[in-house]
Amino acid sequence: MTDYLLTLRFDGRNFCGYQIQNTPNGEKRTVGGVLKKALISVFGSVEKLSGCSRTDSGVHATAYRVSFSADKTLPDDTVIRALNANLPDDVAVFECRTVSPDFHARYSVASKKYEYRIYTSPVRDPFKNGLFLHYPQKIDAEMLNASCRDFCGTHDFSSFMASGSKIKDTVRTVYDASFYSPCENEYVFSVTANGFLYNMVRIMVGTLLEIQSGKLPVGCIPSIIEKKDRSFAGFTAPPDGLYLFEVRYDKY
Amino acid sequence: MTDYLLTLRFDGRNFCGYQIQNTPNGEKRTVGGVLKKALISVFGSVEKLSGCSRTDSGVHATAYRVSFSADKTLPDDTVIRALNANLPDDVAVFECRTVSPDFHARYSVASKKYEYRIYTSPVRDPFKNGLFLHYPQKIDAEMLNASCRDFCGTHDFSSFMASGSKIKDTVRTVYDASFYSPCENEYVFSVTANGFLYNMVRIMVGTLLEIQSGKLPVGCIPSIIEKKDRSFAGFTAPPDGLYLFEVRYDKY
Repeated sequence: MTDYLLTLRFDGRNFCGYQIQNTPNGEKRTVGGVLKKALISVFGSVEKLSGCSRTDSGVHATAYRVSFSADKTLPDDTVIRALNANLPDDVAVFECRTVSPDFHARYSVASKKYEYRIYTSPVRDPFKNGLFLHYPQKIDAEMLNASCRDFCGTHDFSSFMASGSKIKDTVRTVYDASFYSPCENEYVFSVTANGFLYNMVRIMVGTLLEIQSGKLPVGCIPSIIEKKDRSFAGFTAPPDGLYLFEVRYDKY
Repeated sequence: MTDYLLTLRFDGRNFCGYQIQNTPNGEKRTVGGVLKKALISVFGSVEKLSGCSRTDSGVHATAYRVSFSADKTLPDDTVIRALNANLPDDVAVFECRTVSPDFHARYSVASKKYEYRIYTSPVRDPFKNGLFLHYPQKIDAEMLNASCRDFCGTHDFSSFMASGSKIKDTVRTVYDASFYSPCENEYVFSVTANGFLYNMVRIMVGTLLEIQSGKLPVGCIPSIIEKKDRSFAGFTAPPDGLYLFEVRYDKY
């Protein structure tokens, strides 16, 4: 068996997330679902197919990672070309490498980086629909960037986890968090951590936007973290602006 | 009656162009069609509704212009807000102004500028699907930019018009044409003229790409123009990368 690691980009607007979902009404359209079909076309069969994280409906990825095993050994370029010929237009594989048998796209993760994109022009932009959060208000990027520093470090992030989540270990280490404007009317929240709780980035963004709007006070993040209670943080920002941007591994 | 001029952006991927089209199978989904419905919701009725140009299926606009008359006089901001509330996500009005009764979005045009966007990365990009031409080859932007100069000036552009067009006056003045790379793996052909023949920009792009690939010789454009025969120019590039970028008027 050969173990492979793929890197892919997908426009999440027409996907119900990554995770394959079978329902009484049939299989939902997921990235994992279309990828599995393409892998079977190319490799015949695959084993240990694993995505690096669950992503919600409408969430995008510029560098999602998937690992799997197959009994065929094909050159990396051949795998990329053959899979892309079998994948729909809204997902593409752009890297392939072989990895050791104990590698796992999810369990071997060292860090993940997410980006959340916002635009503030008064009128909505048809080309950004579903790809950015439209927030037609003034944003003080410098102030929000200063607030971001309070996310950094090792904390219990229960307050920034969707209520109802069953995960028990809610401690994560945020290595970096920043808020900046790459060009006029556009803003990016960028956050890197060893792992993320369910909806964590989207609740961080909602909290920052409530600090911006004055609903939450500047400097509130440490006390929200301290509460370990979802109800103290801001709203859950919609999936539109969220991109899984980078996944790092210490060894392959 | 009040005469209005609107500026709008649209993502053309799910539109059969601007022009309203009624077929035996019902009305096609056009920008003009959805706009007319929104105008009727806001103004009750409108007259003299005119787009600045026909655009083909799949062609985009960053600043399309539409003029119309209505018996209601509403503030510009109100028109923008009300129309956007009645338009689908892939089209938005971002400017509105009143104009003189003899103004016409199409007949009053002084110049139009189109952009054609190309990307060359080896693997297709899900976020550029339908918005760029994917051309996974090396492009020499400097060489193509030099070739662009041959388009400039007043010429009979019959060779750059879709065969079968019924237009008789095929002389147009190209004020500016350039080919450049705004960032790695991306290229833009930009062309400004007093008017364009049917498929003219797309045939210009196809011709430049055949110069790039060596199928047509460097320096061939003046002789192709001279032939006044469509068969001597390059292929018609697909609509994906084409944007109506700017329309200028001398007076309103």
